[in-house]
Amino acid sequence: MPSIKAKELISLSKKILTAAGASDDEAEIVARFLVNANLAGVDSHGVFTYLHNYIQGIRSGLIKPGAKIEILRETPSTALINGNFGFGQVTCATAMDLAIKKAGSMGVSAVAIFNCNHIGRLADYSRMAVKNGMIGFVTANSDPCVAPYGGKKAILSTAPMSWGIPTQSEKPLIVDLATSAVAEGKIRATLYKREQIPSHWIVNSQGLPSTNPADLYEPPLPPEQVKLAGALQPSGGYKGYALALIAETLAGALSGTGCAEDVKSLLTNGVFILVIDITRFAPLIEFEQRVDKLIRTVKNSPTASGFTEIRVPGEREIEQEEERSKTGIPVPETAWKAFVKLCSEYGVKVGTESV
Amino acid sequence: MPSIKAKELISLSKKILTAAGASDDEAEIVARFLVNANLAGVDSHGVFTYLHNYIQGIRSGLIKPGAKIEILRETPSTALINGNFGFGQVTCATAMDLAIKKAGSMGVSAVAIFNCNHIGRLADYSRMAVKNGMIGFVTANSDPCVAPYGGKKAILSTAPMSWGIPTQSEKPLIVDLATSAVAEGKIRATLYKREQIPSHWIVNSQGLPSTNPADLYEPPLPPEQVKLAGALQPSGGYKGYALALIAETLAGALSGTGCAEDVKSLLTNGVFILVIDITRFAPLIEFEQRVDKLIRTVKNSPTASGFTEIRVPGEREIEQEEERSKTGIPVPETAWKAFVKLCSEYGVKVGTESV
Repeated sequence: MPSIKAKELISLSKKILTAAGASDDEAEIVARFLVNANLAGVDSHGVFTYLHNYIQGIRSGLIKPGAKIEILRETPSTALINGNFGFGQVTCATAMDLAIKKAGSMGVSAVAIFNCNHIGRLADYSRMAVKNGMIGFVTANSDPCVAPYGGKKAILSTAPMSWGIPTQSEKPLIVDLATSAVAEGKIRATLYKREQIPSHWIVNSQGLPSTNPADLYEPPLPPEQVKLAGALQPSGGYKGYALALIAETLAGALSGTGCAEDVKSLLTNGVFILVIDITRFAPLIEFEQRVDKLIRTVKNSPTASGFTEIRVPGEREIEQEEERSKTGIPVPETAWKAFVKLCSEYGVKVGTESV
Repeated sequence: MPSIKAKELISLSKKILTAAGASDDEAEIVARFLVNANLAGVDSHGVFTYLHNYIQGIRSGLIKPGAKIEILRETPSTALINGNFGFGQVTCATAMDLAIKKAGSMGVSAVAIFNCNHIGRLADYSRMAVKNGMIGFVTANSDPCVAPYGGKKAILSTAPMSWGIPTQSEKPLIVDLATSAVAEGKIRATLYKREQIPSHWIVNSQGLPSTNPADLYEPPLPPEQVKLAGALQPSGGYKGYALALIAETLAGALSGTGCAEDVKSLLTNGVFILVIDITRFAPLIEFEQRVDKLIRTVKNSPTASGFTEIRVPGEREIEQEEERSKTGIPVPETAWKAFVKLCSEYGVKVGTESV
């Protein structure tokens, strides 16, 4: 498999984005967030899964470069933000910065966003809170693609939730999970790799479990304009479904984005952010040491048969980041060809040293 | 199966509690919360599962009737509460009242509790926020009984989370779930009913999945002093485990209660509460109508094979409450005998009309 250095991938992505109409600042933020996902090994949320969707979004008018981020309602600890359909990453990073500032002065803050495009990987935002020594929570809703527990039609979004918890000597605890069995991007990634999937991930158009990732989509494949034929299944049945309803109400109903069929575009995200200033409860170092101790207790406990190690959430991604920062980001052939095509469409030259 | 009216069960439980040393007010709150769980059909958290533990707790000095609830740190939107090991229900209801008041004035609030005894069913507290037209979140940690994903030793608590979301014409959305496959109380309830359990609920002392609820406990059975031989499994594997770590850090590390082996008693709960005032984001009625619409969309969508109806979280419990308020609370024979024994120990007369 070819691979590309993060710096080079950011530079190429940025050039494509600016050629498509983004400002330098917007392109920088969007390219960095997408490449961060690839660096962390979360290719389902990286450049090769989403950049062409964003470019298509600019072309079709769904993404509006240069859009102004407006605060519609505000108190010292809350804000409701109108993203005016600019780039989701730019809107959400701005909102998280605001939430961190508000939590710093008030102890806890809540910020909701509407008219917001796809924000990418949630962990990047909860980690912003962690870098400020705070606890961050982010949840989002999007277009329907998950069947409710007991149902077979795609009604709910993958409704992801991310929590970030700072630590002292251990790696920070970064939970980032879809309340569906998997994220939709992960199904698309398996399409490129021509792999089968577990039977509890999706149902086909008849509502039956399927191991073929293609069964999720209407043809043609790979999906340029994603239209679902089947549905994703909720994670762990009832519990994933229950949490998806919470994500929908926080990110969709509270923000005013709307829920379920009211979200029309693949690129739309309703967002809800929460930040907690730890120092209102305990000295930061004491809290962090308690979390360190919990992590060590978990990691040092005896493994179940079939496991050689107990992992904590976020650990693998941070290791991948260190690894891929050195060795580069591996890219499946099909994805690389599509990317080179996109580059050439926007007159962006791919150096021979790139891959 | 015998059954008992809620009013009668509250009255008897109250008498036992006051005879054991609780004040009238304390006994009233604790009895009501326990019976509420029975009414909702959540017998794993009701009178017959926990009352004898509480009485034992008073006897052994773990529960201190009359304990003062102290606010150790406070800002307009946050509080850290020392429960001084009074009754958990009394402490947590007081803390939720405070959180609701703070959210009402600041938009969002966060309250953590330490030195807190068992608070019972979380849904009762998130519902307090809902009754005030607010969004409530409660999470708790307790003594270790769940193996981490990839591990076999009980390190984490069942680490439950509850969200309450107000609605207009639909029943409120009340999510209350253990991040473990089930709550420990549910295993105990199956012991009384002499039922087998699914193989993904527990592992035995060798770390192997078991369908015998007795394998969770050290003998003798039924467990008066619960000591675990095996461990509960996390819900849905990795995702339940990840959320358990978040519950541990919020309820255990932030509150100062501690996590994992630092929590020594079955009766201890670390608690974290969050309340959001919806009106800072949208008019309450607009938000509630959006949630109503989501619930109707879910419930009216086509069912999967094997299902005749799609349920939303909290719906069944509210129906049970209405039903059992009329017909009474069914009690398994073994549990009833143990309860009558407890009554006689405290000189509480059980009327012949009780069952």
